[in-house]
Amino acid sequence: MVQLSLSRRLRRTPFSDGVDAAGVKAFTVYNHMLLPTVFRSVQEDYHHLKQAVQIWDVSCERQVELRGPDASRLMQLLTPRDLRSMNPGQCYYVPIVDETGGMLNDPVAVKLAEDRWWISIADSDLLYWVKGIAYGYRLDVLVDEPDVSPLAVQGPRSDDLMARVFGDRVRDIRFFRFDEFEFQGRNLIIARSGYSKQGGFELYVEGSDIGMPLWNALMEAGRDLDVHAGGPNLIERIEGGLLSYGNDMTDDNTPHECGLGRFCNTQTAIGCIGRDALLRVAKEGPVKQIRAISIGGDAVPPCDQHWPLLAGDKQVGRVSSAAWSPDFNTNVAIGMVRMTHWDSGTELMVQTPQGTRPATVMETFWN
Amino acid sequence: MVQLSLSRRLRRTPFSDGVDAAGVKAFTVYNHMLLPTVFRSVQEDYHHLKQAVQIWDVSCERQVELRGPDASRLMQLLTPRDLRSMNPGQCYYVPIVDETGGMLNDPVAVKLAEDRWWISIADSDLLYWVKGIAYGYRLDVLVDEPDVSPLAVQGPRSDDLMARVFGDRVRDIRFFRFDEFEFQGRNLIIARSGYSKQGGFELYVEGSDIGMPLWNALMEAGRDLDVHAGGPNLIERIEGGLLSYGNDMTDDNTPHECGLGRFCNTQTAIGCIGRDALLRVAKEGPVKQIRAISIGGDAVPPCDQHWPLLAGDKQVGRVSSAAWSPDFNTNVAIGMVRMTHWDSGTELMVQTPQGTRPATVMETFWN
Repeated sequence: MVQLSLSRRLRRTPFSDGVDAAGVKAFTVYNHMLLPTVFRSVQEDYHHLKQAVQIWDVSCERQVELRGPDASRLMQLLTPRDLRSMNPGQCYYVPIVDETGGMLNDPVAVKLAEDRWWISIADSDLLYWVKGIAYGYRLDVLVDEPDVSPLAVQGPRSDDLMARVFGDRVRDIRFFRFDEFEFQGRNLIIARSGYSKQGGFELYVEGSDIGMPLWNALMEAGRDLDVHAGGPNLIERIEGGLLSYGNDMTDDNTPHECGLGRFCNTQTAIGCIGRDALLRVAKEGPVKQIRAISIGGDAVPPCDQHWPLLAGDKQVGRVSSAAWSPDFNTNVAIGMVRMTHWDSGTELMVQTPQGTRPATVMETFWN
Repeated sequence: MVQLSLSRRLRRTPFSDGVDAAGVKAFTVYNHMLLPTVFRSVQEDYHHLKQAVQIWDVSCERQVELRGPDASRLMQLLTPRDLRSMNPGQCYYVPIVDETGGMLNDPVAVKLAEDRWWISIADSDLLYWVKGIAYGYRLDVLVDEPDVSPLAVQGPRSDDLMARVFGDRVRDIRFFRFDEFEFQGRNLIIARSGYSKQGGFELYVEGSDIGMPLWNALMEAGRDLDVHAGGPNLIERIEGGLLSYGNDMTDDNTPHECGLGRFCNTQTAIGCIGRDALLRVAKEGPVKQIRAISIGGDAVPPCDQHWPLLAGDKQVGRVSSAAWSPDFNTNVAIGMVRMTHWDSGTELMVQTPQGTRPATVMETFWN
């Protein structure tokens, strides 16, 4: 492990005081902001997430707000997913691509109203792309980063914890839908979503000043539910096949390579940037694609660079995320594999910094 | 100090193996990349930088490449600095602003040819803004992040070290000019520039494969010059008044607030984005501005959030960077102060996490 030099540039969040008090052990940096990654240990946090309930400071999922008469037109420009049937109250996972079909971000679009959207972003300054496009197209729309910091409640006891603070109506929120709730006289958007497969909610906290009161209220209410501070968990998210922008994909990749072709309605998403390139990809199919990979042997070291996947002497892909899974008793991994070797059951070798290991292409992820 | 969780998303560089071998103690994250910050200690590295010569892995100063017939037109769109008299072989510090005059980045523009530029960026995804503008304006230009990783040689013995590896011609490079040199049969752009006030060079290393050979050649050649791995030094850069994007300024600030008005030729930079807003600012002047601030008492804690500057009960500014300076025997700081209190000699109070301290607005920085 290495040390992180703190500075104002790595922004603290409205929940940072709570995170510090909960004994955070490690951070990563995400959208120029601190994202807590470890509280007890990656493995302890993992077991706890699957059994109880955690509060995650995911303020780093910054919002890009679109507001004004051209907001919906701009939103459809940005993504090959067809948004015509989307209603206010819904969240859509939307690949965002450039003119060549390369992924710029893989955010969740939150439709607040016909003329108002939040784009809840992964780790890249999508704000700059959206501002550039809006300005270049001379659109009538405000594009901004509002003072909104998501807080996630994740784990099997999420509904119980949330009901104690927000009432039973919170249980009725359907997956990737949101509703408005009140907290200390303020309105909060709460969605059933989150970056784990254990169920839960994301609370879009508008106004930094209610950050700590909300954090404390949830911690207080969940004491007998064994609530604990947590964060996106490396092991759990790989098991669940949750991709990470910057780790598993970059602007080199098309959505189809990332297995996100089902979110591209390139025929009907008229006007979207990258449509020409993606129509070609959709027709021919990608020549490499994201796969679940299991890696043999004992626990692999941290995966901080691409590990080549080999068939004999030939490189046929690379692993981008990997971790030891206690529950599945193997190393779980995410990799990009060429079509010649992407069938499930294909046996490959992977070059880790601690030597070459056997690797197997899996049928599905471990969820 | 806190731990940093490593992952592929926090990109390693062509020099990372050298950085590890040199015993790096801490990193920050900058443009989604690891930036080494501490080798021995911040203070030891500081003294050494001022006396000898250091090799810095500043790969995180990524390049945005503009290539094609509209490259120069796009470059002038991006900045209020008038580029008409700039020649190939020159580097310009260029504020980049949005349509409201807010700073998006403060990079160095490197003019390689009339139709080819590199923009050597501070910590924000300027690539996304430039791509968005180029696409929105339908310009005939390629915009890309090339495989170019800057390596800096900084400190009073920089000329001697560089001459050993590249010959005496390197001594003739003038400040903010560059020339081409050969290393192992490959061409390298070398500029006299860098993020310290101790003199030195930045080498634009094109092609990751020559990263470690170059690192090793410099380390080898400088052994009797006491060469050491280093990085941008918090104390030295505050003494020198070198601003840090994300720390001392954000997209909330105009260049004029940052004391960068001299780089804005808003009258003559016809066509630049933000011109309307900046003409207004240039006419009226900013109401707050960056100042050197000295803070009394013993060493301040790390400044990882804004510290309010107070005149009596009233907040009149904030400190964004601060460190104890052994050479000046005081805490040196950078802050933004309202015009009512920005005259040199003004006595204020600053609220640090370890209590309130006296602070003084300085005439100049400490260089």
